[in-house]
Amino acid sequence: MRFASEKLIAWCVENLEKSGLDYNEAKTVAQVLISADERGINSHGIIRAEGYIQCLQSGGIAANAVHTIINDGPSYALVDANRGLGIPVSVFAMDLAIEKAKKSGIAIVNVFNSHHHGACGYYTLRCADRGLIGLAMSTGDIIMAITGAASNSIGNNPFSYAVPAGRYRSICYDIAMSTVAAGKISMAAVEKRSIPLGWLLDPDGNPTTDPDDYAKGGPLCPFGGYKGYGLSMMVESLAGILSSAALLKDIHAWNMDPNSSGNVGHCFIAIDPAVINPGFSIPERAEQMIDQLLSQKKAPGVQRIVFPGQLENEKEVDSKEHGVLLPEATLVALKHISEITGIIFNRDTLKK
Amino acid sequence: MRFASEKLIAWCVENLEKSGLDYNEAKTVAQVLISADERGINSHGIIRAEGYIQCLQSGGIAANAVHTIINDGPSYALVDANRGLGIPVSVFAMDLAIEKAKKSGIAIVNVFNSHHHGACGYYTLRCADRGLIGLAMSTGDIIMAITGAASNSIGNNPFSYAVPAGRYRSICYDIAMSTVAAGKISMAAVEKRSIPLGWLLDPDGNPTTDPDDYAKGGPLCPFGGYKGYGLSMMVESLAGILSSAALLKDIHAWNMDPNSSGNVGHCFIAIDPAVINPGFSIPERAEQMIDQLLSQKKAPGVQRIVFPGQLENEKEVDSKEHGVLLPEATLVALKHISEITGIIFNRDTLKK
Repeated sequence: MRFASEKLIAWCVENLEKSGLDYNEAKTVAQVLISADERGINSHGIIRAEGYIQCLQSGGIAANAVHTIINDGPSYALVDANRGLGIPVSVFAMDLAIEKAKKSGIAIVNVFNSHHHGACGYYTLRCADRGLIGLAMSTGDIIMAITGAASNSIGNNPFSYAVPAGRYRSICYDIAMSTVAAGKISMAAVEKRSIPLGWLLDPDGNPTTDPDDYAKGGPLCPFGGYKGYGLSMMVESLAGILSSAALLKDIHAWNMDPNSSGNVGHCFIAIDPAVINPGFSIPERAEQMIDQLLSQKKAPGVQRIVFPGQLENEKEVDSKEHGVLLPEATLVALKHISEITGIIFNRDTLKK
Repeated sequence: MRFASEKLIAWCVENLEKSGLDYNEAKTVAQVLISADERGINSHGIIRAEGYIQCLQSGGIAANAVHTIINDGPSYALVDANRGLGIPVSVFAMDLAIEKAKKSGIAIVNVFNSHHHGACGYYTLRCADRGLIGLAMSTGDIIMAITGAASNSIGNNPFSYAVPAGRYRSICYDIAMSTVAAGKISMAAVEKRSIPLGWLLDPDGNPTTDPDDYAKGGPLCPFGGYKGYGLSMMVESLAGILSSAALLKDIHAWNMDPNSSGNVGHCFIAIDPAVINPGFSIPERAEQMIDQLLSQKKAPGVQRIVFPGQLENEKEVDSKEHGVLLPEATLVALKHISEITGIIFNRDTLKK
């Protein structure tokens, strides 16, 4: 069954409004989340509204928080999210970076006192769709062991970049620093499948193939060993240290305590090729790069070579035409939301 | 045996001058290379002088090329290296980014028409030593298969960042996008050891454990699978596309043809925390992050947890006090250089 994006958005908005958000803020959040579902990134789609609503209702995240620009210049800004939701302030921050970069070539906007902000790729794609190269990153709760550690020591800090790419629309790379997302491990636990070594440690810090070790407090492993560890420190440095957000164990991306801030930090960088290198069309050059990469000889057994974001670009086109696919886990979350807010959830009324 | 840095530099300068470089350019190149040896990064140390000298003598790299700023503003610059060596123009470009970022918070400097520029970490560390966060990256010859490809499709494009870190000096992360450097595979071939799966493909694109497949044209594998592939495309985009340097198969980092340019591209970004977030000491916050990470419970069998660049920082202190260690492969290269230039190489005269 396929869902209609606009109906999902309307339903999500209604639930967020019931949880205290103004219409405009609710609409921004709903649009960003459902855009992830359209791109097949269901782990960061409307499923996340459940957590946001719980945090809003507990007071751990402030509804309609008004962000404040603490410091700014032609190429930078530092923004206090004032304990609000991560998504609205991140849209603001990326747009501010774009606006500044269009004049100064490059701009950085840092955010602190924020919370979970959905998929980083949303922001970089927004940037690339306006012709700029975008980078986005965010700190998160410590759920990953650094190299050599037995315990949760750092977030699997997401990082994304996007590059405008002409007829390919854009390259959009969006990763977390763990070998796999925690969701894949939970799924294996439900299905009683063992997991490959390199995904998880047990609570004593030993490599494990037992997905149940995650629920027991076992940390995720960084992808590529020390290389992924080092990249998560880069994100912690640019999104956490530079923003003066909380660091490491003090981060609570899903804050439920009305008396504290989860204090997540974000970093957005926009780069305008038209300012820096006006003699060349960067989208055309990106097309040439992609053409060359996609025409490589395929390794035995490989059906298709793709570039980062290509499958998501294709899913988005398909979703817009035929409606959005939602996995069972998302539908369960929508039912939970309905139980919290009292707003009826009937999947048939949301059909495409 | 330990070597004296200043004697190695003097010897290297003499050889580079004999190859056509002015004293100042020769000194910059020698200092940057030997600084890598001091940090234990011998793969990017004075051993590289052999290749530079071969390219200079063939005319493939222009001696004493004067770089030109093609376009610039308060937060950016685009630099034509005019077919010169990568190191001098990269020092210039990073310093220019630092100078601009000190006023505007962030700055980007792109370089094209350049060549191999040694270890990226040299430039970011130079930035961090001045109190700024630095990023550096460079394109390179295609020696790595992208995910799904059977053949050499992209460079293992190096990427580095560094963050000033107070009493820890700095975090300095410096990686290539392949699982391991080609040098490790060549070493295994010499020692007739098999290599783990995930390092290399054979020339038909099959996973291989035979290090001899490298010499037969087998491509390196990206680290972390598609995540490393995507990062190498980021470097290609920022250092190659944005710079209007050559792309992919047209790059020749070690150009020997006097009638063409290797046209390597670089990208340097400097970020000044004192401009963006003057209320906080970023080195102090970096110290706090490192303190917390280094105090994690160690996994079974682990002796020590380190942060990126820590071992190199320690080696540098040791090298400055006791002299530089050089591996046999470097000494062989120095002998080759001596054969090319006719300048005597006597290891005893270079002793600490």
